Amino acid sequence: MKVSQVNTHSGRYPVYTGEGLLEMPGIWQRHLTGRTLVVSDENVAALYLDKVGSLMAPGHRWQSLVLPAGETAKTMTNWQLVIDKLVDMRAQRDATVIALGGGVIGDMAGFAAASYMRGISVLQMPTTLLAQVDAAVGGKTGINHAAGKNLIGAFHQPVAVVADIGTLASLDERSYRAGLAEVVKYGAIRDEGFLAWLENHADALNSRLPGALTDAVHASVNHKAEVVAADELETGQRALLNFGHTFGHALETATGYERYHHGEAVAIGMVLAARLSELLGLLPASDTRRLTAVLKLLELPTALPDDINRDELFRLMQLDKKNRDDRIRVVLLEKLGQAVIQTCPPDDIREVLQNS
Amino acid sequence: MKVSQVNTHSGRYPVYTGEGLLEMPGIWQRHLTGRTLVVSDENVAALYLDKVGSLMAPGHRWQSLVLPAGETAKTMTNWQLVIDKLVDMRAQRDATVIALGGGVIGDMAGFAAASYMRGISVLQMPTTLLAQVDAAVGGKTGINHAAGKNLIGAFHQPVAVVADIGTLASLDERSYRAGLAEVVKYGAIRDEGFLAWLENHADALNSRLPGALTDAVHASVNHKAEVVAADELETGQRALLNFGHTFGHALETATGYERYHHGEAVAIGMVLAARLSELLGLLPASDTRRLTAVLKLLELPTALPDDINRDELFRLMQLDKKNRDDRIRVVLLEKLGQAVIQTCPPDDIREVLQNS
Repeated sequence: MKVSQVNTHSGRYPVYTGEGLLEMPGIWQRHLTGRTLVVSDENVAALYLDKVGSLMAPGHRWQSLVLPAGETAKTMTNWQLVIDKLVDMRAQRDATVIALGGGVIGDMAGFAAASYMRGISVLQMPTTLLAQVDAAVGGKTGINHAAGKNLIGAFHQPVAVVADIGTLASLDERSYRAGLAEVVKYGAIRDEGFLAWLENHADALNSRLPGALTDAVHASVNHKAEVVAADELETGQRALLNFGHTFGHALETATGYERYHHGEAVAIGMVLAARLSELLGLLPASDTRRLTAVLKLLELPTALPDDINRDELFRLMQLDKKNRDDRIRVVLLEKLGQAVIQTCPPDDIREVLQNS
Repeated sequence: MKVSQVNTHSGRYPVYTGEGLLEMPGIWQRHLTGRTLVVSDENVAALYLDKVGSLMAPGHRWQSLVLPAGETAKTMTNWQLVIDKLVDMRAQRDATVIALGGGVIGDMAGFAAASYMRGISVLQMPTTLLAQVDAAVGGKTGINHAAGKNLIGAFHQPVAVVADIGTLASLDERSYRAGLAEVVKYGAIRDEGFLAWLENHADALNSRLPGALTDAVHASVNHKAEVVAADELETGQRALLNFGHTFGHALETATGYERYHHGEAVAIGMVLAARLSELLGLLPASDTRRLTAVLKLLELPTALPDDINRDELFRLMQLDKKNRDDRIRVVLLEKLGQAVIQTCPPDDIREVLQNS
């Protein structure tokens, strides 16, 4: 097991990474205060809820709430269900919510914990690679609104994160690979050495070897923790984590959030962002090729399919909430391992899209 | 005009107190960033919305949302209306919400600002005495749930508070006096000298003289600011502000939130809490008499009416969310100007209720 520490204005908390942690209550029990509500989804609950429940300390008062699986579950209605359940079990200000699941459960249960009695504790137990390396660390919580994803939410840091690598064995292939895209992202924007490590361990990661996975998740969590510690509320460098996301979000929206997993869209988005960096004279073409190659080694998509309308993608990027004025704010690479935020002329983005 | 500074972990902000501040855009315009949404209720909007709107800087993009008046408006539905309005006007992360109204508007608009895009700015413009001396300062926001008031919410500090004493002239008599109860509370728990000042200025306050009111609000805000700076998230001494509230809440609940204004119930609750302090040997009877006398000078109720069932009140206090185990946590006085939190035996509370 490896432990990272996340330092934020609202306190310091540990992230435990390793195999079989859900079965080691000594790790997580100490973070539970008051009554405990375990929130999970149908898929994850079937695999792990009984295990976690059976390991609660004798006499500890806890209940569970199982919600439907999938991004469409991240609604105001389901968030209210979590609140109602907390009311129903008479949870007080000392209560704890355990978010047992992927990013959707982490976001929704996290926002319920953030807003119940103006904030109770949440313990994140992410069971997907994407949630372990990204969503569970850093305190972003939220639910979707008809007008946009995560439009309603809060910054609410967890009391601890328990990333059990063992849960990744049951992940379906595409979800697993989508998580790897965010792992590659940390290398691309912050750590060329980590990118080299990924190149050397692609086979081990493709085989989901626990040792390599623990190292990859731990390294990713450390990167995330450093960024969050420096910029908890995303007023500055935390936005660098959006590398590949402006293109990726547009692609997800254009395809109705059905064709691509988030990480797949981000993989394609990172290649497009690298090309834009090239066009603006920031990045050598060899770096774009190397980034593309790592993604391919990890069997991620890197090309914008022919049937995607480029004009539509461009229009969606202009609508993206992170933009101001006419110029479009994007995260670019100065070299592999070093990212920068710039506003750039719409025409350059259009050109990259047309030529990809 | 007087200015207080509130120092919190999330930043430092000013509270401006004085007459006619809504008509001085130089005071508040500088705190507006991005698009601005003014949230108000029907009563307050009729009096002040046009004034505030007409003073916005030329070209500043703003809209307004007017909600029904009253505590029953503090619902999830109305909170969603504020969110939807922000979406509708395409408010970005740099947008500002102005909460123009009493505590209900401040709480609801504040929580909408807290949760829209994980937090945008809110500028509090409290128009009731209660909101000026209490709710608008300190960052507590929230909405009601069928199971309890303010059960859903967030700590979200404003960027500034503009307390225009001039708006108090239009307050109905009972609302005005209810606000005075919270003013007396600061004297009772923190500042015997302020209590003496209130005794000497009761006539001026009863006549709503602007000078006395400015002094009283400014002193109250300073007390609130000191408590909030020391304990932003109410893990310790901020709970002292609940002096009179455990009894008061029970009385409000027992009478269906219709018979008493919050401050009136708190006035009676403070007298009961003083008597409990006496019973426990903490406070001399002369201090209870003096506190009761100040409240009477300000024409506030101090006696529990005969038709209130004492057993029912006791039961409601046991249900109060701030209690743990069998003993009941209450704020008591050690002397006028000094409060302490203690858990005390249920029988003593029962005795005070039976004898009051």
